[in-house]
Amino acid sequence: MKIKHVLFGLAAAGLAAGASAQAKPEDQIKFRKAGYAFMSWNMGKIKQQVIDNPGSFNKDQVLAAANVIAATANSGMGALYGPGTDKDVGGQKTRVKPEFFQQPDEVRKLALAFIKEANELQKVAATGDAAAIKTQFGKTGESCKACHDKFRKDE
Amino acid sequence: MKIKHVLFGLAAAGLAAGASAQAKPEDQIKFRKAGYAFMSWNMGKIKQQVIDNPGSFNKDQVLAAANVIAATANSGMGALYGPGTDKDVGGQKTRVKPEFFQQPDEVRKLALAFIKEANELQKVAATGDAAAIKTQFGKTGESCKACHDKFRKDE
Repeated sequence: MKIKHVLFGLAAAGLAAGASAQAKPEDQIKFRKAGYAFMSWNMGKIKQQVIDNPGSFNKDQVLAAANVIAATANSGMGALYGPGTDKDVGGQKTRVKPEFFQQPDEVRKLALAFIKEANELQKVAATGDAAAIKTQFGKTGESCKACHDKFRKDE
Repeated sequence: MKIKHVLFGLAAAGLAAGASAQAKPEDQIKFRKAGYAFMSWNMGKIKQQVIDNPGSFNKDQVLAAANVIAATANSGMGALYGPGTDKDVGGQKTRVKPEFFQQPDEVRKLALAFIKEANELQKVAATGDAAAIKTQFGKTGESCKACHDKFRKDE
């Protein structure tokens, strides 16, 4: 019931890919972890080029990374938090805290904030303005962290 | 040396995110597997909506999925096949065949073919024409399979 609430909230916010057949719980966990891992690689590339080593800044590479992050943010990952995905299952471990499934309004708020920042990062990346990208990269990272701090278990 | 050839080939083809600091081999494997896994979820959503259950076709969801696939295809994944990633390492298993690292020209050809089809899928998805999307989805899947057949070990 709580899980249904989350899904309904995400669907109402346009975050769920409701039309797809429901994947098995272990596959949902696998896919959502894959999405976050691949985003983290792309966040790392942007960090590298606007913070750690600005001399390596390459507009096309940064835009390509921002495209991945925005596309992933808009891919309806809410559908990957279905029933049975609140705990380790079928060899797949999850770090999502139980509270995630009990606070649909907060989840929706954090998800929409992340999507907004990711879309903005894509827009700013297209301009090639390294300083503006750096600022927006920071905001995007903050929106990731807001959810991690609240709903992700430490390793 | 062979691996260098592959990376050079990919870089020349614009497939490598060369400016990013090299991740550890186990992280490169983790990230590339994540990219493929997340693409497969998105390919699955498109398949669901244009083949398995056409009545569920939703233009926005299909376009969102196609955006992920195109963005991932253009993200420079060649950088995730660096030295030491040709075998299982640090708890990360890889299904890439050794031949992948010995046939840079063939890898480049297959990678460019996949990128071309993924970009076309994104374009066609934006039109919302379900029949055209189905056709282009088939071509994209073929370009995935061409590489799997040649360079991926069976499970």
